[in-house]
Amino acid sequence: MADATYDVIGVGNAIVDVIAQADEAQIETLGLAKGAMTLIDADQARDLYGQMGPGMESSGGSAANTLAGIASFGGAGAYIGKVRNDQLGGVFRHDIQAVGVDYRTQPANDGPPTARCLIFVTPDAERTMQTFLGVSVELGIGDIDAAAIEASRITYLEGYLFDKEAAKEAFVHAAEIAHAAGRKVALTLSDAFCVDRHRAAFLHLVESHVDILFANEAEITSLYSVDDFDAAVSRISDQCEIAAVTRSENGSVVVSGGRTQAVPAMPVEKVVDTTGAGDLYAAGFLYGLTQGRELADCARIGGLAAAEVIQHYGARPAVSLKALLAKNGI
Amino acid sequence: MADATYDVIGVGNAIVDVIAQADEAQIETLGLAKGAMTLIDADQARDLYGQMGPGMESSGGSAANTLAGIASFGGAGAYIGKVRNDQLGGVFRHDIQAVGVDYRTQPANDGPPTARCLIFVTPDAERTMQTFLGVSVELGIGDIDAAAIEASRITYLEGYLFDKEAAKEAFVHAAEIAHAAGRKVALTLSDAFCVDRHRAAFLHLVESHVDILFANEAEITSLYSVDDFDAAVSRISDQCEIAAVTRSENGSVVVSGGRTQAVPAMPVEKVVDTTGAGDLYAAGFLYGLTQGRELADCARIGGLAAAEVIQHYGARPAVSLKALLAKNGI
Repeated sequence: MADATYDVIGVGNAIVDVIAQADEAQIETLGLAKGAMTLIDADQARDLYGQMGPGMESSGGSAANTLAGIASFGGAGAYIGKVRNDQLGGVFRHDIQAVGVDYRTQPANDGPPTARCLIFVTPDAERTMQTFLGVSVELGIGDIDAAAIEASRITYLEGYLFDKEAAKEAFVHAAEIAHAAGRKVALTLSDAFCVDRHRAAFLHLVESHVDILFANEAEITSLYSVDDFDAAVSRISDQCEIAAVTRSENGSVVVSGGRTQAVPAMPVEKVVDTTGAGDLYAAGFLYGLTQGRELADCARIGGLAAAEVIQHYGARPAVSLKALLAKNGI
Repeated sequence: MADATYDVIGVGNAIVDVIAQADEAQIETLGLAKGAMTLIDADQARDLYGQMGPGMESSGGSAANTLAGIASFGGAGAYIGKVRNDQLGGVFRHDIQAVGVDYRTQPANDGPPTARCLIFVTPDAERTMQTFLGVSVELGIGDIDAAAIEASRITYLEGYLFDKEAAKEAFVHAAEIAHAAGRKVALTLSDAFCVDRHRAAFLHLVESHVDILFANEAEITSLYSVDDFDAAVSRISDQCEIAAVTRSENGSVVVSGGRTQAVPAMPVEKVVDTTGAGDLYAAGFLYGLTQGRELADCARIGGLAAAEVIQHYGARPAVSLKALLAKNGI
């Protein structure tokens, strides 16, 4: 197997986040599914934005956040995702390139605008996301840069992308290229509702194409249609080389080779905004893996990155994770 | 004089801020004038953005920040400023309307894009601003909503706008309408370099059109070409009904009717980003004035709002200033 140019390449929905503070009453009045990610169309996005408080725009997208995290640790990353050639597309491109991630997907010159995710953050720090996917779901097989995937130790796919046909195909295509090159494929289930909408396809994907699976409790129990976390964990252990399941303030559980290890969460002073917690956990975990660290350490590094991102608004690190890791001596 | 619909109407450059962390070395390498506001053209903006770290976009513009602050105190505000009908223009419009400020300036359908200000925040919390004015300076006399100005107790003008001819005319026009309706006119000098570029015009403006002047030490000494703060203060006391001069951590000095009152700054735990400090001081001061508060209290309320905004990134309040004021019992 050739040397890798990249530690990780991510494939996902290229999205700009619009973050606003909200109270419980507003979440209720607007009829939002608190804590979840709900897809909305252009008209809904316009209406909902009109009812949202003043916002802060920053680049998001689950896998893109993860790659920004990996870059912040000092890892070499690349990203595949679709924006339009509009102002928000320019913002997305700038931000991911500014942290050193190789991003060369051609922007669309027409069609819907760059995707945006309206994020309502409540005083309990929970985020409720309403996503207008815009042009991001026009990512197709033609956008999958085979050479870049072949040159990456791990190809990381976000489950959110799995909502539309063309993107699904691009997704499987990327996994096949990675495996043909002897590389690993990682997947995050992303959202319990998304898993619920596409359960059979996700099960097939996990069984056939995924070496490293990321999920939270709700997602993994949704995947296997079980109520019990332990039951889900025992199912996943047969199907993936590695599974890392996050449990919020209870840390994470890593399942591999029939062994289950629980790793506690990092202590946090004050949780401000949980947006990006799972994305940054994956960043730390994958960075650890590419550095040949033991799985429990990968989980700890993931927890460290997640703890950083939930202590401020926004889904990408506000400090150097490389420096933070050195300081924490994991 | 008719009852006022608005406490304050602001006239200024409608700008979206792009805030990024920077270190001292980057400020030096890029040759930026630390702490100042420098105007840049479209090409410079593109080049500089390419060298900037990952950013956070949020609505800015000096007078617009002040009006957002007044709205947060519960004051009734309106705003006049020019954006284009592009995505960042939509962000600006949304954010100012979302806080309850009446904003009805028609967006431009062609010409340069919405203005943006690249803000480099160094670890000492100082902000260095590079502004691409875009379409904001195409604000002209035709955009000055006479009825709204006549219906405002105070018309607040930002000195930044004073860099281009058409905007200057709009500026003076607005002041004349306000005075003809028996209203007050306030001005912030905005930036010592801007004052330096247009000293004679500013002196004429202050003498002929301004009732309430906001400035910091650098700006007021630049206006009168004196080295000494006290000399500047004695000059200003002859020319304006009220002058409020801010002195960063040393609080502010209010000059009126031959009397000078110094008011200490509010204590601050940790200064993160000084962007918006002067704008929010003006917000609190003007809100106090419209509530008939004594000048020293106006200065204290201004200091309270400034203290809030410098403790987080971004130039607009992150909490309700009305609640903060009630809590502080000024």
